[in-house]
Amino acid sequence: MSNNSCGTSRIAGCKFTLYPMSDQFVDIILGVLEEVDTSKVWKDTDDVSTCVRGKMVHVFDVTKALFLYAAKTGEHVAMSGTFSIGCPGDTDADSYMDEADTPLNEAKSNQVSQEAGCKFSLYPMGREDYMDAIYEQIDLSKHRNVEVSASHYATRLDGDVKDIFGALHQSFDSVQEEVSHVTMSFTISANSPSNKA
Amino acid sequence: MSNNSCGTSRIAGCKFTLYPMSDQFVDIILGVLEEVDTSKVWKDTDDVSTCVRGKMVHVFDVTKALFLYAAKTGEHVAMSGTFSIGCPGDTDADSYMDEADTPLNEAKSNQVSQEAGCKFSLYPMGREDYMDAIYEQIDLSKHRNVEVSASHYATRLDGDVKDIFGALHQSFDSVQEEVSHVTMSFTISANSPSNKA
Ligand SMILES: [Ca+2]
Repeated sequence: MSNNSCGTSRIAGCKFTLYPMSDQFVDIILGVLEEVDTSKVWKDTDDVSTCVRGKMVHVFDVTKALFLYAAKTGEHVAMSGTFSIGCPGDTDADSYMDEADTPLNEAKSNQVSQEAGCKFSLYPMGREDYMDAIYEQIDLSKHRNVEVSASHYATRLDGDVKDIFGALHQSFDSVQEEVSHVTMSFTISANSPSNKA
Repeated sequence: MSNNSCGTSRIAGCKFTLYPMSDQFVDIILGVLEEVDTSKVWKDTDDVSTCVRGKMVHVFDVTKALFLYAAKTGEHVAMSGTFSIGCPGDTDADSYMDEADTPLNEAKSNQVSQEAGCKFSLYPMGREDYMDAIYEQIDLSKHRNVEVSASHYATRLDGDVKDIFGALHQSFDSVQEEVSHVTMSFTISANSPSNKA
């Protein structure tokens, strides 16, 4: 299993797939990849998923922008993935850790308003008794623009895409300060016909 | 966080979303839900994902059949989700643990041949030092019909959908015998245009 060999760098990563529920899915994905600046992250794509790796700030900036720009096409679009830190398994993206912290897509992303629903689960890969303390650190009530609710095996967030990714980022960041190896799975969905009354 | 209150039952669950990359996504999803017998699992669906819970054998039987029948439409279809055991958080699906072990969709599923690619990651939620021993237990070489390769943060499986779900099921089952709380995230994809030469 490749994810069994852990290194020591604090490089973050996200393995995700973007799903436009549309006959135009190829054009939407290619268009978004053209629109989003991914130059500050290492990136690898195949037929199942895309993996981006680098500084945490850029990993969240890029995944947020990819979803946001796909959703603003108006099509029903979803993204599922897993953020990870503390277990890279190799060093081929380490050079991206020298990038400056300024997120490249934030200014443009801030101009887009898009509602979405998201479910996420945080998995601190440590001792069992770390978990209570860790979950107490995640104070989602700080994210006043995001509606938080309980869901099976997950926590649900509803609100603007930027606020949702902000809450994901802060939750992940808080936990990774305490635990060396953390993963966070998420599914975010926009423009679902189930939401249109 | 809802996933912080763990119970003691060995009820398994899967939170997943089925993604047909097609304008007909609603019809495909509704058609598949009609075709698959989900009567042996507790089921809850909203606009972001579906959750099924019950005996492990039925959770895998139902998720495999849902993906398989969606993929045999010939459309590009993917499914992302997370299998969990050991942390149900509530008891509202406990009655499904009395169901007999016979999987309801297996005979029909066995008649469908469908190639796919899958990436999965197993997260045993225990002490750090459990992990090496656990990964050693997962002997994917037993699954001769599935091609196994390493991928970032994940293991990749290629082959027939039924063999892929067989390998997922056996890996998950082996680990949950040793660790009380296990999660396994996966993404499986079929009929991707990236695969058509
Ligand atoms: Ca690992």
